[in-house]
Amino acid sequence: MSLVVTTVSGGLDSVTLAHVLAAEGHDLLCVSFDYGQRHAKEVDYAKRCAARLGAEHHVVDLRSVGTLLSGSALTDPDVEVPEGHYADASMAITVVPNRNAIMLSVAVGVAVARGAEAVATAVHAGDHPIYPDCRPAFIEAVEREARIGNEGFAVEGFRVLAPFVGIPKDEIVRRGAAVGVPFVETWSCYVGGDVHCGRCGTCVERREAFDLAGVPDPTEYADAEVTT
Amino acid sequence: MSLVVTTVSGGLDSVTLAHVLAAEGHDLLCVSFDYGQRHAKEVDYAKRCAARLGAEHHVVDLRSVGTLLSGSALTDPDVEVPEGHYADASMAITVVPNRNAIMLSVAVGVAVARGAEAVATAVHAGDHPIYPDCRPAFIEAVEREARIGNEGFAVEGFRVLAPFVGIPKDEIVRRGAAVGVPFVETWSCYVGGDVHCGRCGTCVERREAFDLAGVPDPTEYADAEVTT
Repeated sequence: MSLVVTTVSGGLDSVTLAHVLAAEGHDLLCVSFDYGQRHAKEVDYAKRCAARLGAEHHVVDLRSVGTLLSGSALTDPDVEVPEGHYADASMAITVVPNRNAIMLSVAVGVAVARGAEAVATAVHAGDHPIYPDCRPAFIEAVEREARIGNEGFAVEGFRVLAPFVGIPKDEIVRRGAAVGVPFVETWSCYVGGDVHCGRCGTCVERREAFDLAGVPDPTEYADAEVTT
Repeated sequence: MSLVVTTVSGGLDSVTLAHVLAAEGHDLLCVSFDYGQRHAKEVDYAKRCAARLGAEHHVVDLRSVGTLLSGSALTDPDVEVPEGHYADASMAITVVPNRNAIMLSVAVGVAVARGAEAVATAVHAGDHPIYPDCRPAFIEAVEREARIGNEGFAVEGFRVLAPFVGIPKDEIVRRGAAVGVPFVETWSCYVGGDVHCGRCGTCVERREAFDLAGVPDPTEYADAEVTT
């Protein structure tokens, strides 16, 4: 059994990743980040995911970082969360500068401290149009930096795993269904009400993914009608 | 005038770097990190450095990260700070896994959010034997990752400046003297008493640097006698 440090936001992608890694026989250490996102709600989903999988779980407080990176709709209450499709140009406002590099650098630090063989991230192909830090070239750059920066301290052949980097979200849903992910125990909505709003970028993307995958969507949406 | 985000610990190297960058005509945004190091004292020196240079200053709270990376003598009160020369193998216990990657990833995020042209770090040649994240190959890897991960958001030709990466600490002292750095307003000691202990790794390295540079050392040491 090998140890993998995986970042878990509580969203569909990262929870599915944790289940897939566990199904492959890895021991997991789950790390979530509080960077002052509008809703801390998804962190509860991350906690329950770790508990289900018998994994150690830590929430890293990066609120101080989030404050400095304000101006994104995800952290700044003065910026409105845009509606519409996730891949639209309007979603650029949801970019938190260098977010994945920051979270992965912490995950790598934890992995090195614990002697883990890898870190894992659930970035996927649907993120590529807007978020440069979700693309394959970025993952390779992070792995390269992690190995060089921790030479002699990280395990030999240390890796940054991103098994979803080349696949769209509907394929993630298929893979999650195959390992029995309880999708109702994942949170996507950027708005953060009692139930998923059904209209923000990630809600639209979530509904579409279940639809394309042909997997029943157990999510309760405030706006039940699909408009795209 | 161009904006540079520079990491300032309050130590001799990073304070000198800030002064050198300011002398070169850059506008500075200084960022310090609290990762739960034994002494928060050096952060006061960083604050005063920023104030002297008329620069904006932020202290980023990474204590939550420090807790997860414990086991280093710099963050864990149960681990004794080793005495002796900084380059000795015993100093490996002062390694905080992936520390520079974490701090630089935050600095890059701030730089992208503010439209800065570069981040800067005071890593130097004397750090190379023990700390892999202070070597030229690491700096290049960070710059590469920063550009790829912020494509379309960072300014064109974004850089990670590490002007001291190829020089020893005594040359930093010479360069600092040339731009009038008030060295007494810098803090090196890992022990963190009222005055520099004079015996820990960084104190030994500090004294040696002034000696080799032929620059008067204004530092008050608890142990006035140089033993190495």
